[in-house]
Amino acid sequence: MAHEVTILTEAELRGLVKLDLPAVEVVERAFSALASGTVVMPPILSMAIPQANGEVDVKTAYIPGFDGFAIKVSPGFFDNPKIGLPSLNGLMILFSARTGLVEAMLLDNGYLTDVRTAAAGAVAARHLAPSRVETATVIGTGIQARLQIEAAHLVRPFSRVLVWGRDMAKARACAADLTERLKITAEAVSDPAQAVAQSQLVVTTTPAEDPVVRAEWLHPGLHITAMGSDQAGKNEIEAAALVAADLYVCDRVSQCELLGELRSAMAAGVWRGGTPPELGEIVAGRQTGRTSDDQVTICDLTGTGAQDTAIATFAMKAARKTGAGSTILT
Amino acid sequence: MAHEVTILTEAELRGLVKLDLPAVEVVERAFSALASGTVVMPPILSMAIPQANGEVDVKTAYIPGFDGFAIKVSPGFFDNPKIGLPSLNGLMILFSARTGLVEAMLLDNGYLTDVRTAAAGAVAARHLAPSRVETATVIGTGIQARLQIEAAHLVRPFSRVLVWGRDMAKARACAADLTERLKITAEAVSDPAQAVAQSQLVVTTTPAEDPVVRAEWLHPGLHITAMGSDQAGKNEIEAAALVAADLYVCDRVSQCELLGELRSAMAAGVWRGGTPPELGEIVAGRQTGRTSDDQVTICDLTGTGAQDTAIATFAMKAARKTGAGSTILT
Repeated sequence: MAHEVTILTEAELRGLVKLDLPAVEVVERAFSALASGTVVMPPILSMAIPQANGEVDVKTAYIPGFDGFAIKVSPGFFDNPKIGLPSLNGLMILFSARTGLVEAMLLDNGYLTDVRTAAAGAVAARHLAPSRVETATVIGTGIQARLQIEAAHLVRPFSRVLVWGRDMAKARACAADLTERLKITAEAVSDPAQAVAQSQLVVTTTPAEDPVVRAEWLHPGLHITAMGSDQAGKNEIEAAALVAADLYVCDRVSQCELLGELRSAMAAGVWRGGTPPELGEIVAGRQTGRTSDDQVTICDLTGTGAQDTAIATFAMKAARKTGAGSTILT
Repeated sequence: MAHEVTILTEAELRGLVKLDLPAVEVVERAFSALASGTVVMPPILSMAIPQANGEVDVKTAYIPGFDGFAIKVSPGFFDNPKIGLPSLNGLMILFSARTGLVEAMLLDNGYLTDVRTAAAGAVAARHLAPSRVETATVIGTGIQARLQIEAAHLVRPFSRVLVWGRDMAKARACAADLTERLKITAEAVSDPAQAVAQSQLVVTTTPAEDPVVRAEWLHPGLHITAMGSDQAGKNEIEAAALVAADLYVCDRVSQCELLGELRSAMAAGVWRGGTPPELGEIVAGRQTGRTSDDQVTICDLTGTGAQDTAIATFAMKAARKTGAGSTILT
């Protein structure tokens, strides 16, 4: 039976969905739902294509109360830059949660993933960072370095950002962008330890395979969001830090055990803390979060299908309201 | 970076891809590749949505030598017929195997799945059925009952078909359709045992949860393709038949163990045959298939991502040749 499918391009989606508080709030709602136990979120489907130095991940989740569910496909082909193409790509498909019919193809080339990933950082900062953040540090200089700081600034309006990366020129470019976007002081720094020492909020956004943040750098009144590790083999935070922190939180325990900082800490035999709380449980008030501004907290984000379903339904709602996109009958 | 994505509707795909020998051959090539050990085919991503009596499966495979790989999403929402919608739906997305960029959206509503599923039946019949088939029986009266017989007829041009289903009226309708399509004698029958007794080729196409084909019905010179079971809980062939047959073949052992006839036979403790050969190994000549027309063979088809990649690249090649479909820049 023929039905209409809405097609939204990256340009249209960039017009419809911004990294703003409403986007943070829909992602927060997805985390809260995750804690309810009624979300269905299967393990990530992952396929390596060694012949092309590529990989593809597929994520999805059904969240009761959301009209649709997304299937998100994220290819990463790491030789693409050699031929002038971006490494990361992808799209989301939105299905009706009532009939399973395809409702929309969101040809976002990864844009919605960027937004929902940064929005999760804001959710973590909102619920785990000290109530006052004056200085934030970002480790890494890519798109997520910029977006994570923008997102965190929505919920903790700090006045100063420090940027550290292995490439000082890239760190300077990132700092310049952040100054322009947020109208605050942003500076590239050469010593990550000193930057962390001055910060109440640190976000790590690298594909590091060896820790860039040391346990000895932890200090009272610090929150770290580690969003870089989303695969076995990646590791941004020294394992001992997870144990030394007052609170270590996962976006999804089952994913962090396989793909996140928790995996490295377990592999090193360092983690003996049992099952960590999940961010959604803290959002929903089912687990205790930070209890004083002096505590040290760490949040490990691997990226969940629930965020994809949240941002895709959010985008489609905006498209319906404005009549954006084209439709095809199939 | 903006790039073009081709969009093909169900109507366009029905014009481009037919259930014919070229379609069978591309699926056969996928099976042959599966035997080479170079195909990457991750486990099926499966999500149940009990609130809507629904489920979604995602399949994919990378096949060296194919330009693209498909991600196929198959929702099944079993309350849909109550509101006048089909239970099964879905689409395929074709990605470049070199860059991971989205190349095409195949909005087929399950049509390509129907074709590649029937084509696999033809591959099984070509490599496992006795060289001469005069009478074929199909168990089941749905779309796959029709397509499986059409496909098998391409490789074993039998002159007579018997159709059995629980609903005699549906069996008659199916037989009438087959007579019209294949210009051969097709008749609905009330006794499946008698039908099997008269047949050299039997295809089972039901969602049965209790066996419809008994081990005692096996007779020399019989091939059975069981394509109905694609989920734990389904079972069309009595477990003892798998053991009694001279040869039992899987489309993919790892899938049949979880979703196919092999699962039931293992659960019943009946299967002690070790690891069965795969259809692709027989196609590629790496395992021995039928060695005489008197043998009894059974092939268990659960449906593989390799078939999806094969049919999707085949469809896209045809679209390129004819300029079919529309394009969108994203």
